[in-house]
Amino acid sequence: MLRLYDNHLSGNGYKPRLLLAHLGRTYERIEVDILKGETRTPQFLEINPNGRIPVLVLEDGTCIAESNAILFFLAEETRFLPSDRLARALSLQWMFFEQYSHEPCIAVARHWIQHVEMTGAQRAQLEAKQEGGRAALAVMERHLGAAAWFGGDAMSIADIALYAYTHVADEGGFDLSDCPAVNAWLGRVEEQPGHVPMNPAPAGIVEPANA
Amino acid sequence: MLRLYDNHLSGNGYKPRLLLAHLGRTYERIEVDILKGETRTPQFLEINPNGRIPVLVLEDGTCIAESNAILFFLAEETRFLPSDRLARALSLQWMFFEQYSHEPCIAVARHWIQHVEMTGAQRAQLEAKQEGGRAALAVMERHLGAAAWFGGDAMSIADIALYAYTHVADEGGFDLSDCPAVNAWLGRVEEQPGHVPMNPAPAGIVEPANA
Repeated sequence: MLRLYDNHLSGNGYKPRLLLAHLGRTYERIEVDILKGETRTPQFLEINPNGRIPVLVLEDGTCIAESNAILFFLAEETRFLPSDRLARALSLQWMFFEQYSHEPCIAVARHWIQHVEMTGAQRAQLEAKQEGGRAALAVMERHLGAAAWFGGDAMSIADIALYAYTHVADEGGFDLSDCPAVNAWLGRVEEQPGHVPMNPAPAGIVEPANA
Repeated sequence: MLRLYDNHLSGNGYKPRLLLAHLGRTYERIEVDILKGETRTPQFLEINPNGRIPVLVLEDGTCIAESNAILFFLAEETRFLPSDRLARALSLQWMFFEQYSHEPCIAVARHWIQHVEMTGAQRAQLEAKQEGGRAALAVMERHLGAAAWFGGDAMSIADIALYAYTHVADEGGFDLSDCPAVNAWLGRVEEQPGHVPMNPAPAGIVEPANA
């Protein structure tokens, strides 16, 4: 059975949880407490030397890290990875945008505000993070003014990657009220059959809803 | 003909330049002056609303942004993208590692030290960037202690993505002398037939060396 090292607060962990639900896959969810440093123990560094969740462990013990690489692996030969070469590249374009221009601002601001006692250095960087996050949301709003989805003509892993932290951007101090196209897209993602909310089941075996 | 919006100082721009050289593809290189804000003009934002180089423009005018998405697009059905599903996922794992944990530290420290007058905020963050970069290099050193390449059993786009800024990490204040496996890997990348150095040809048509 697939095993997912995960944290219930993490949007990066939510990405594979959401795709696994859409795919109707059963998996074992292992909760890792980021705030207690459980991703930096020698045992965890054997699983991912970069010390981060999520990590997907395959039946043969192979570990795949990086949320968007996990999405790509799980989505191959399903409707969540476009079969067209250009649409596949544009899906990846948006997934790299997510990890470079979106997550380091929106997810990090949310983490600082919601989950930790901010250090002085973090407090000094918060405004720059929020400015970067607003710029990323503006890029998304511009794209969604002319297209329904990010990776092609249907929901793909690019939409799952961007949905994870966009739908909780308010927790990072972002106001989505002036992003009507983003709001409409969030609604389209949530209306898809098989959608599950961010808050995961407790650690243990996760069965798909339609099982 | 393919067109590449690029900057001669950029490792992210070097990634597609290096792969295009290996593939023997002719392309038109457009130099964009990042330091003069040429990626933020209304004209450039039509090409990439996220305001960054590189951007690959296809014959039909379609634009692909994000260096690693460009690598993936160009590499499909060539030896630089592994044909094995797991090796493909692990290549992407390392490419997302590069954009999240490596480039924002190593490339940014190099940029601040080499190409701009540092602001106070940048100066305050430099030590954290260098600590992050050293951690990323340590993850690479650990991997290369047991494997010759990042994406499989031959050089792939994961190696090109990581080579771009690793081989100039010294310009960001990083000392690679205690990373023997990384140094050996840099040498393997440079020994590949078709390798070209980072410093590009002037703007204009770039013909492959073997043309």
